[in-house]
Amino acid sequence: MTTHTWRKTSTRLADGRELIYYDDSEPYASGGATRRLDDPRPLPDRFADVEAGAAALAPIMRRDPLTGEWIPMAAHRMNRTFLPPADANPLAPARPGADYSDGEIPDTDYDVVVFENRFPSLLHVPGVPDEVTLVDGQDLFEQRPAAGRCEVVCFSPDATTSLKDVGEGRMRTIIEAWADRTTALEALPHVEQVFCFENRGEEIGVTLHHPHGQIYGYPYVTPRTQQMVGPARRHREETGRSLLDDIRAAELASGERVVAESEHWVLFVPFAARWPVELHLVPRRRVRSLPELTDAERADLAPFYLRMLAAADRFFARPLPYVAGWHQGPPALGDLLGLHLELLSIRRSPEKLKYLAGSESGMGAWVSDTTSERIAARMREVWA
Amino acid sequence: MTTHTWRKTSTRLADGRELIYYDDSEPYASGGATRRLDDPRPLPDRFADVEAGAAALAPIMRRDPLTGEWIPMAAHRMNRTFLPPADANPLAPARPGADYSDGEIPDTDYDVVVFENRFPSLLHVPGVPDEVTLVDGQDLFEQRPAAGRCEVVCFSPDATTSLKDVGEGRMRTIIEAWADRTTALEALPHVEQVFCFENRGEEIGVTLHHPHGQIYGYPYVTPRTQQMVGPARRHREETGRSLLDDIRAAELASGERVVAESEHWVLFVPFAARWPVELHLVPRRRVRSLPELTDAERADLAPFYLRMLAAADRFFARPLPYVAGWHQGPPALGDLLGLHLELLSIRRSPEKLKYLAGSESGMGAWVSDTTSERIAARMREVWA
Repeated sequence: MTTHTWRKTSTRLADGRELIYYDDSEPYASGGATRRLDDPRPLPDRFADVEAGAAALAPIMRRDPLTGEWIPMAAHRMNRTFLPPADANPLAPARPGADYSDGEIPDTDYDVVVFENRFPSLLHVPGVPDEVTLVDGQDLFEQRPAAGRCEVVCFSPDATTSLKDVGEGRMRTIIEAWADRTTALEALPHVEQVFCFENRGEEIGVTLHHPHGQIYGYPYVTPRTQQMVGPARRHREETGRSLLDDIRAAELASGERVVAESEHWVLFVPFAARWPVELHLVPRRRVRSLPELTDAERADLAPFYLRMLAAADRFFARPLPYVAGWHQGPPALGDLLGLHLELLSIRRSPEKLKYLAGSESGMGAWVSDTTSERIAARMREVWA
Repeated sequence: MTTHTWRKTSTRLADGRELIYYDDSEPYASGGATRRLDDPRPLPDRFADVEAGAAALAPIMRRDPLTGEWIPMAAHRMNRTFLPPADANPLAPARPGADYSDGEIPDTDYDVVVFENRFPSLLHVPGVPDEVTLVDGQDLFEQRPAAGRCEVVCFSPDATTSLKDVGEGRMRTIIEAWADRTTALEALPHVEQVFCFENRGEEIGVTLHHPHGQIYGYPYVTPRTQQMVGPARRHREETGRSLLDDIRAAELASGERVVAESEHWVLFVPFAARWPVELHLVPRRRVRSLPELTDAERADLAPFYLRMLAAADRFFARPLPYVAGWHQGPPALGDLLGLHLELLSIRRSPEKLKYLAGSESGMGAWVSDTTSERIAARMREVWA
């Protein structure tokens, strides 16, 4: 196992947002060069007007009385004052000599960088109390500040590459950044669950091709995670064991849906895959979250993750549109739910997409047009 | 109130599927002419080979051990032997003199017709026991026949019209058909929940433009409905009242999100709308299901429903892609959950669609880019 050297440098953008460099290349990694930390853009402090009433612009969320779900309503995002021209790339390093007005990252290069989203749907505004208010005086109409956090993770300074091609060392740095930000966001008093994910592909509405992901710190436990609480609790009560441990063991015992294994990780198509392509990546040792992974588990994950993405692009012999997200147990649930990644794609053939139809959109009831075993067989075929 | 006269005529297609005419026009409605009931296509009986092993082709569903959800896996649908040519319309009435081989409906015209889907994701196959089996001998891997029912509802014989333009009398017949099929499907021993819905728009993958809807009889309670059980139960325990009653009362008291009212129906944007356009249509009197609606409630619904669809198409001054579905309480839950319709659209501007991104796809956590009040204000503007 090789040692991975990286260095973290934090700063704030002109409007007060946090930006953090995660460097793994010289001369930055060893401190031989310093990061440009000042953002010369004339952006007003985003909270300057809080006392004057800008708090009213803080994102809010409402509880759906029918289901209990919290729905952030980011109406302020529709009033974006900053719309980069179509050919601008706000995630690119600033060009040497440029006035930095066209980019979010005030340096001429970077390795991996994380910063707060300029138009977040979840945002804690200082001084805005995290309290439920009743809209129109109705007990059923609960509203609260959507006091979470939305961050952007740039995977590479190269706008034309793809995460699968960033190389093992850079991937390792990205894993460190995910883990570090998970620790930071879980420490925020209003965050209940941290989700690190990547969205890729024009087919799912991604218009910015620069390789990047996002991190959401939700001020609630998400509906998908809440669905997982009941079965995990029942399984523990009945068997005393962890459900995710037993699912991994059952998949390994069956073998039918296992795509690949590494020393510390297992990749399989879940028994009841909902999407035309769906992969679950699970560590052999149960942990709640990314920060709990050991050095050895992280070192092993980096190349395995890249192989997974490369194979996914061979599935239909063309870049796969996908959502890949890390499910981490919400801290308040202790060790009930374990860390795993889910990669989903709506592509169901080289030419066709799965659209969410009435059953999926209206009833949340998924119908698969394929089987888990077919997906697994194809993934094994293209694994390299 | 006018009396609505309609007549129901049932038959079976060559392969054994049920087909039911709901006629409201002369000479069919009064029995002055008979429906063509024989399907001359040389389709083999779909269950002919059951004893020889075709039961193995019956759709199955698997329980996701992480969430408890049942996922039908309709792999056999990928092996469709029947693929109509691109310009064929299997929902059109057969052409006079045609050999009927290009259509599903063996008559030269019809008013409203319902038939079993030829490639259903849910299907009860006679003789296949409705039992859970364990895949690979693993307790966590439960599989069962997906023993439900999928039906198609043709709203009009005219392939070029739209549901909003079928006229009040025809709409009333469609309501009668929905109610009648709900009664029939709820009576099937393997069906737990009936969902009547319409999917419209190329933007959501609908390629068949003939105005039609679908009815699913699920052999389980859907995830969306299961989400509604907890809040409805808690509300009843705490107040003794129905949650849907109190939501309707609260929306009427507030008024902010109410779009329109009729004698028996209220149309509002829900307090916590998840979609860029979302409408809930609720009867003033609480009922569990469509068959429980009185004549007066049905007569009032027909024109109100058409006005809703017409206004929806004016929202962005172009046909709105939408899913509109009737939430009916599963019979096993008694009167816990009440009847209401939800209309959802992914269109968020005349040019843009809302794509499900990482938060929605990965975590089931919706983020709205607008507010319920903005949607309601626009709907009131275009209401006529």
